[in-house]
Amino acid sequence: MGKGTLYIVSAPSGAGKSSLISAMLETNPTYAMKVSVSHTTRDMRPGEEHGIHYHFVEKCDFESLIEQGAFLEHAEVFGNYYGTSRIWIEETLNKGIDVFLDIDWQGARQIREQMPAAKSVFILPPSNGELERRLNVRGQDSDEVIAKRMSEAKSEISHYAEYDYVIINDDFDVALIDFKAILRAERLKQDKQTIKYKGMLDALLS
Amino acid sequence: MGKGTLYIVSAPSGAGKSSLISAMLETNPTYAMKVSVSHTTRDMRPGEEHGIHYHFVEKCDFESLIEQGAFLEHAEVFGNYYGTSRIWIEETLNKGIDVFLDIDWQGARQIREQMPAAKSVFILPPSNGELERRLNVRGQDSDEVIAKRMSEAKSEISHYAEYDYVIINDDFDVALIDFKAILRAERLKQDKQTIKYKGMLDALLS
Repeated sequence: MGKGTLYIVSAPSGAGKSSLISAMLETNPTYAMKVSVSHTTRDMRPGEEHGIHYHFVEKCDFESLIEQGAFLEHAEVFGNYYGTSRIWIEETLNKGIDVFLDIDWQGARQIREQMPAAKSVFILPPSNGELERRLNVRGQDSDEVIAKRMSEAKSEISHYAEYDYVIINDDFDVALIDFKAILRAERLKQDKQTIKYKGMLDALLS
Repeated sequence: MGKGTLYIVSAPSGAGKSSLISAMLETNPTYAMKVSVSHTTRDMRPGEEHGIHYHFVEKCDFESLIEQGAFLEHAEVFGNYYGTSRIWIEETLNKGIDVFLDIDWQGARQIREQMPAAKSVFILPPSNGELERRLNVRGQDSDEVIAKRMSEAKSEISHYAEYDYVIINDDFDVALIDFKAILRAERLKQDKQTIKYKGMLDALLS
């Protein structure tokens, strides 16, 4: 069955990261893949589900998980904890399932240190004008929030060179084909193939 | 335009290496790619063309090219020289063109030392039975030659783990999709994208 690959995926808000990951999960039935669900201590919002959007836990439980080394990375934002479960990711990879981890450049750095075999993908918008247009079209945010997101976007984008792969999400379908090509090529890496085709290779060399 | 990638491609005779490279050149018009043509001192055979199958040169000229350091690798086989031109490959890569280099594991080792950025792909048959069947179907070789090729195949296959990528050529169309995915993913590597999209990235970060 082989071992799955951990994909760190980062992008500025509005670049299309979540849509690309969703489309990948829907349209690629050949291989098993899952998205990592973070733990958080913040309150559940309307429409959110436990285990789907986050694992919602109490602050004391989160702190006890930190002490147990249960997180690959964690951070405190506005008084709330957010963290990525080490155990779930390791167990899922060991089942031969690829895992997507939607995380910012700071989390990405922590993950790379802990999981050097992870592959990282940065998704870029084609321009700042297009990014701003997409944020406006979503209609979720006020002008003030959009201005803040644009400033955060520049900061996030400034770290793109720390990633293994860079996808330009200009045309969504092309970006999805790019994303799929990366996953397909990574599965063709010698170490993955050696595990997957062990029986065949033994027979070829016997 | 960016810089092309050198692909070292190895396989036992009959695994479908030449067919895969030909199909790739015919069916992928989006990106520029070429096959490296070796130099040799052996005699031209019926149907062969200078500059297509080999660059046919005199022994004294080949030896003078060796002294000039013109070859990335060269070998002597049954009294004839074979070599890979360093200058043509470097110039072609600098034009942003990917180059395929069809070579055995020994040549591959020499190339890797000289060109550490090269990516290497090993193509495997699904079984020895299928490999032997394909060699018989070609009808080119006597039983004796086929037995010799099968023995050489095992020796070549024993080096598959020195390669970056491994493609199993069971179904030709699937193997071709695999090969294309590798090329597409390699073009999405951060260093290649940074060169290709320099203007866009400057604008995003300005």
